[in-house]
Amino acid sequence: MVNRGVAADHVALRRNNLSVVLRHVHDLGPRSRARIAEETGLNKATVSSLVAELVERGLLREGSADSSRALGRPGQLVELDGTGVCGIGAEINVEYLAVVALDLAGNVVHEKRVPVDVAHLGPGTTLDRCAELVREAVDAVDARQGRLAGVTLAVPGLVEGETGELKLAPNLGWSELSVAKEMRSRLGEPTYPLQVDNEANLATLAAYGELREADALHDLVLLTGAVGVGGGVVSGGQLLRGARGYSGEVGHMPVAPDGQACGCGRTGCWETVVGLTALLRKATDPDNPVRDPSLDVERRLAAVVERAEAGDVRTLEALTEVGTWLGVGGAILVNILNPAALVLGGYFAVLGPWLEEPLDKALRQRVLAADGGGCRVVRSDLGFGAAVRGGAQICLDQVFADPTQLGES
Amino acid sequence: MVNRGVAADHVALRRNNLSVVLRHVHDLGPRSRARIAEETGLNKATVSSLVAELVERGLLREGSADSSRALGRPGQLVELDGTGVCGIGAEINVEYLAVVALDLAGNVVHEKRVPVDVAHLGPGTTLDRCAELVREAVDAVDARQGRLAGVTLAVPGLVEGETGELKLAPNLGWSELSVAKEMRSRLGEPTYPLQVDNEANLATLAAYGELREADALHDLVLLTGAVGVGGGVVSGGQLLRGARGYSGEVGHMPVAPDGQACGCGRTGCWETVVGLTALLRKATDPDNPVRDPSLDVERRLAAVVERAEAGDVRTLEALTEVGTWLGVGGAILVNILNPAALVLGGYFAVLGPWLEEPLDKALRQRVLAADGGGCRVVRSDLGFGAAVRGGAQICLDQVFADPTQLGES
Repeated sequence: MVNRGVAADHVALRRNNLSVVLRHVHDLGPRSRARIAEETGLNKATVSSLVAELVERGLLREGSADSSRALGRPGQLVELDGTGVCGIGAEINVEYLAVVALDLAGNVVHEKRVPVDVAHLGPGTTLDRCAELVREAVDAVDARQGRLAGVTLAVPGLVEGETGELKLAPNLGWSELSVAKEMRSRLGEPTYPLQVDNEANLATLAAYGELREADALHDLVLLTGAVGVGGGVVSGGQLLRGARGYSGEVGHMPVAPDGQACGCGRTGCWETVVGLTALLRKATDPDNPVRDPSLDVERRLAAVVERAEAGDVRTLEALTEVGTWLGVGGAILVNILNPAALVLGGYFAVLGPWLEEPLDKALRQRVLAADGGGCRVVRSDLGFGAAVRGGAQICLDQVFADPTQLGES
Repeated sequence: MVNRGVAADHVALRRNNLSVVLRHVHDLGPRSRARIAEETGLNKATVSSLVAELVERGLLREGSADSSRALGRPGQLVELDGTGVCGIGAEINVEYLAVVALDLAGNVVHEKRVPVDVAHLGPGTTLDRCAELVREAVDAVDARQGRLAGVTLAVPGLVEGETGELKLAPNLGWSELSVAKEMRSRLGEPTYPLQVDNEANLATLAAYGELREADALHDLVLLTGAVGVGGGVVSGGQLLRGARGYSGEVGHMPVAPDGQACGCGRTGCWETVVGLTALLRKATDPDNPVRDPSLDVERRLAAVVERAEAGDVRTLEALTEVGTWLGVGGAILVNILNPAALVLGGYFAVLGPWLEEPLDKALRQRVLAADGGGCRVVRSDLGFGAAVRGGAQICLDQVFADPTQLGES
């Protein structure tokens, strides 16, 4: 089936079919040309020609002989040549900087995360340090003679879709900043594409990539919990962007009328009752090292998990309260969007075992459709690595969508 | 550009290109084959062959000579043959039944609305009367020798996408009802397709059709205000359905913690503070005829408009209060979805002149992005006719998407 509304010519048809074959082998694994033809509905001669072009472009390669066929002569398998092309995702978040480089097969080529108090450091120094992380990742790609499809930088704030400008990041204290331009200048005006995107949207793309394969889910809402709370929506297999790219700002839904002051200047925003700061305030005393942003967030959360496992009453009460508030806002999202899954990311995933019961209960009470409209609560395995993964993936997706764009190897 | 992920064969390509040409003439008006070729990028011979097939199928026809060309010999114009194919939309709502038949060009062939207290009447009698309305519309299509593309019935409740079963309509007091089956049986098991859909989603499709042409908007949220409050979301040009078809249940977002009891059994749902019942309770005394559901809703609203125009303080205060509450829930939707427009439908559109100022103010205060993320408040002109129009349109859209499905005329 082709898109409605746009006439398809034969160049576009060929590009589409290159994309279909490349994705097919990526999604379903090594297979013979004959099998690709059977499964995609393309004829055998066309598949042979498409595979030849994809091999020339360094995206597919010849594999072993096909041993799965009982009858007839065995075909040669074709497999993804993942090693030659990489995408890089980097992230500036409230309490850390991170980077990952993935190859076309999704293997991690390079990965790093450093705890940083970004609001304290300010934009200039933070961007210097982030550029350094990106350079290290580019070097790692170069060291294995990979071609770089691009770099995506995740930021926790409103990114204007058209310009890539960061309009507002309340928890960083940044606003109206041309992050892409600043990064390009620090990286010496590189030739590879560099784009800036919202971290929750990128984390959502990564979680969708994970769940699409495992559970065939195509409607989901991801909640990323850190100091700020972000969200991303996939509906019918598409990430929602909104008119200007600002969609998913769930952390600032007004749900707690008598709530705490929020980083955005309002009171009662959802993140003031479910963000990491809210949890730690409820669960610990002010001088507790768990509250220290210069320590790695995963280590701090491990300490919370330890207390919860030991049955510490204050910790368990704080988790139940946060879980219930998660359900109050979650029910709003489920009523509006009817996702098949509410996916817990970031710190929500780590503390999921204690958050899920009160969350589930609140959903069932507050969603109009019986049984929460079929919505399951799911934990993402990607943790705080989701946004960088999504950022790298979005660069690689562009290769899958148009295998001709990188040129021949 | 073609869809990614699915191989396109040449039959699909031809079907797509028939659809492209038919939509092109529908959207942009009569034009020559040469101009269609220029504008779509298809070659002239292909366009001639596509037009010939569409004429044979009774969807396009030869028009007058093209007088727009100053040079060269004038081409023959091709125009939409709208008269031969119709779609029907019907609606069961809390206080009325309605039906409309539209031809392919969007002209109204037949239209009717009757005030009915559906909750009082019960499902059996209501469906009898609704079937009668549909039969009248089918007769009107038959009378002009039109072919019927299908019937869509709008209901104010949760409709399961896969089965078309009405799971729950709180304001009708209906649940777990196979409305499509009941209607088909009352209509004598007709051969045309009959489907059931959520009224807010259908109203959204109609409003999108209206605004897409006028303002090129592709991201919007429609709010339909009647006794119940429904919503629909178009994002990137696509209507959001959700995993089971239950999306858009905005009326039951919990926004007023100390609010009134809702038809759904909870308290504080958004519709308890912005629904028509809430407005009339605030603006009028219990014995006021304006509250009588056996009178036509548009006439009752005309009485409210009259009082507002006369400066009646109680009416104006009620409108300001409802407008502010509209903004409280509207801000949640705008933070999540970043639409280019929040479209007021149903009674919200009629009273828009008094609701918009407090609504706008609340949006600006509560949306994270500056200036409400660029979201405008817009009134739909379709009033209470939006859902039936959307229902008829969805049948016709299926003809536009695949002009081969109706057979040749």
